[in-house]
Amino acid sequence: MQDFTATDHQMMARALRLAERGAWTTRPNPMVGCVIAQGDEVVGEGFHQRAGGPHAEVFALREAGTRARGATAYVTLEPCAHYGRTPPCALALIEAGVARVVAAMGDPFPDVDGGGFALLRQAGVEVAVGLMADAARELNRGFLSRVERGRPFVRIKLAASLDGRTAMADGESKWITGPDARADVQRWRARAGAILTGAATVLADDPALTARPDAGAFVPPLRVVLDARLRSLACTRVRDGGAPTLYLHDPALTPPRIEGAAFAAAPLQADGRFDLAAVMALLAERGINEVHAEAGPTLCGALLRGGLADELLLYMAPLLMGEGARPLLAGLGIAAMAQAVPLEMHDLRMVGRDLRLRLRPATA
Amino acid sequence: MQDFTATDHQMMARALRLAERGAWTTRPNPMVGCVIAQGDEVVGEGFHQRAGGPHAEVFALREAGTRARGATAYVTLEPCAHYGRTPPCALALIEAGVARVVAAMGDPFPDVDGGGFALLRQAGVEVAVGLMADAARELNRGFLSRVERGRPFVRIKLAASLDGRTAMADGESKWITGPDARADVQRWRARAGAILTGAATVLADDPALTARPDAGAFVPPLRVVLDARLRSLACTRVRDGGAPTLYLHDPALTPPRIEGAAFAAAPLQADGRFDLAAVMALLAERGINEVHAEAGPTLCGALLRGGLADELLLYMAPLLMGEGARPLLAGLGIAAMAQAVPLEMHDLRMVGRDLRLRLRPATA
Repeated sequence: MQDFTATDHQMMARALRLAERGAWTTRPNPMVGCVIAQGDEVVGEGFHQRAGGPHAEVFALREAGTRARGATAYVTLEPCAHYGRTPPCALALIEAGVARVVAAMGDPFPDVDGGGFALLRQAGVEVAVGLMADAARELNRGFLSRVERGRPFVRIKLAASLDGRTAMADGESKWITGPDARADVQRWRARAGAILTGAATVLADDPALTARPDAGAFVPPLRVVLDARLRSLACTRVRDGGAPTLYLHDPALTPPRIEGAAFAAAPLQADGRFDLAAVMALLAERGINEVHAEAGPTLCGALLRGGLADELLLYMAPLLMGEGARPLLAGLGIAAMAQAVPLEMHDLRMVGRDLRLRLRPATA
Repeated sequence: MQDFTATDHQMMARALRLAERGAWTTRPNPMVGCVIAQGDEVVGEGFHQRAGGPHAEVFALREAGTRARGATAYVTLEPCAHYGRTPPCALALIEAGVARVVAAMGDPFPDVDGGGFALLRQAGVEVAVGLMADAARELNRGFLSRVERGRPFVRIKLAASLDGRTAMADGESKWITGPDARADVQRWRARAGAILTGAATVLADDPALTARPDAGAFVPPLRVVLDARLRSLACTRVRDGGAPTLYLHDPALTPPRIEGAAFAAAPLQADGRFDLAAVMALLAERGINEVHAEAGPTLCGALLRGGLADELLLYMAPLLMGEGARPLLAGLGIAAMAQAVPLEMHDLRMVGRDLRLRLRPATA
């Protein structure tokens, strides 16, 4: 670990907040923020807004102008070293005369992966890496999951009563959570690369599955319906609303041609259910960083059981729905306390009258 | 509402904190704290420690000595006006020459109920009532429930997984919550007048149901077993450990004589279950301010359904136990969302790795 000053920490924290402003728009690219400072004074800042658009460093350098000379550039991710849709940011920093680059982390993307730092050092720029690396990794958990693990970061959204029920026995579930929680869900949807559901949910609820945040620009997430037999095609709302829709189906089927719908075959297991690990690999290949799953207890339970659930986004309403109501998750196959699934509290807050928990698989 | 100064608020807040130090020992009396101040300077303070012992005002006046003359006395509850086991505190304040008494609330106990304030005013002492009254009522919610409603304040302790399960299908439940949560439960037990359970729990778990807080003096709570047919008498742990035990039973039965056990008949309903409202009236008559229920889903569900649950003390462990595990509460009779039981979050915190929620029936 390098020695970083309090100013370094302040500047990097600022760069991280800037980066997050791209959460709804940068995918499949990572979110990146950049602050250029002369000592304590910020002379330029920027963030990556859209794939294909300028990188964070470009915005920050434009703002800094000649004041970039001799300055320190704080970047939340290693500056790129390759000619992609934009020229390499490492060169731009060198050309602007930046004296020092502080990066939160390296970029594992194969075209970068240390190349940016190497370019900078060859040009005599001082490079320090690792400041607030945990926060930077958390910011881009989706991008990093795709690049490092070959699958998206999978978040399962659940809404339940305090006694862990998601619907009455007859399926009634409007509304367990309050308006603030429902608005919050729309913001989580907006940052997802894909919103995933199953045919059962489409058939039962005919959901739109679009992101409808109360404000802010976003790239409409891909709607993904797991529908082996393509039995939910008559439910059309999931194809409306201006967002793309992808149906995954049994490779043995030939899908129809339907406007506004794409189809892809995904492997099934012996039991006729999707191989969910293969589904996630397929979505990663299509550039999906984060999957936001809103599905029934069976699909959510299968994702969890398959080790594919990276986060549970659980809204708990201050209600009791009784033991006859539907369970949170199904098919976990737990018969003894030793088999209970341990989770870790990642974040906890009230959202309106409801409780919001973000839980992740326990690592210990 | 009177005008109170910032100093008044500070002093009353201090008196409330003092009062709470008697939470484990004062019952069946209310908790009371007293601060005597000359302007900003505290000259005496005290709290009611034990029924039969000196009241808060007595401790505070002793400490203040002659400096009580002309001072303001802050009391969390109206000073008593009757000769009980101690002489009236209102007279003691008058004799000490206190110029002003600020009380958070009046004492609804029939022997007081305004008499203390009347005595003070007749003696020319300035009296102001209502400062931080909500906090004072909350402090003595048990005492006030007994005096005003003729029944104890009933708290139901529950420990569950995030999916609302309290035990595996075979009854295994050790341990859902962590050691910090279990230690916290002991502190809640210590402040209860009675720890209530049902015969089914005694038969299944053979619990001791004693309070075992990690530190601090307390009066052992009465253990109350609802056992209409007295079928749990062979389980003896609930009679061990130095705390009294009361079995409530069908009036048609004649209980045996057993050392360490008391028996009382309580009315049954037509369905053979206890009339729980009558049970609570019986406990109030015995001076129980707070009932801490630790029971199975059926008894807890019946208390809730009967409108007798004033608080749910719910520990949620970051675990999933699956849909085959036992439910949080049973017999709520809910078939539609409109019948779901609405609750309000009274308090929320982490206790070790577990979440602790205090929930109360929604008032709106």
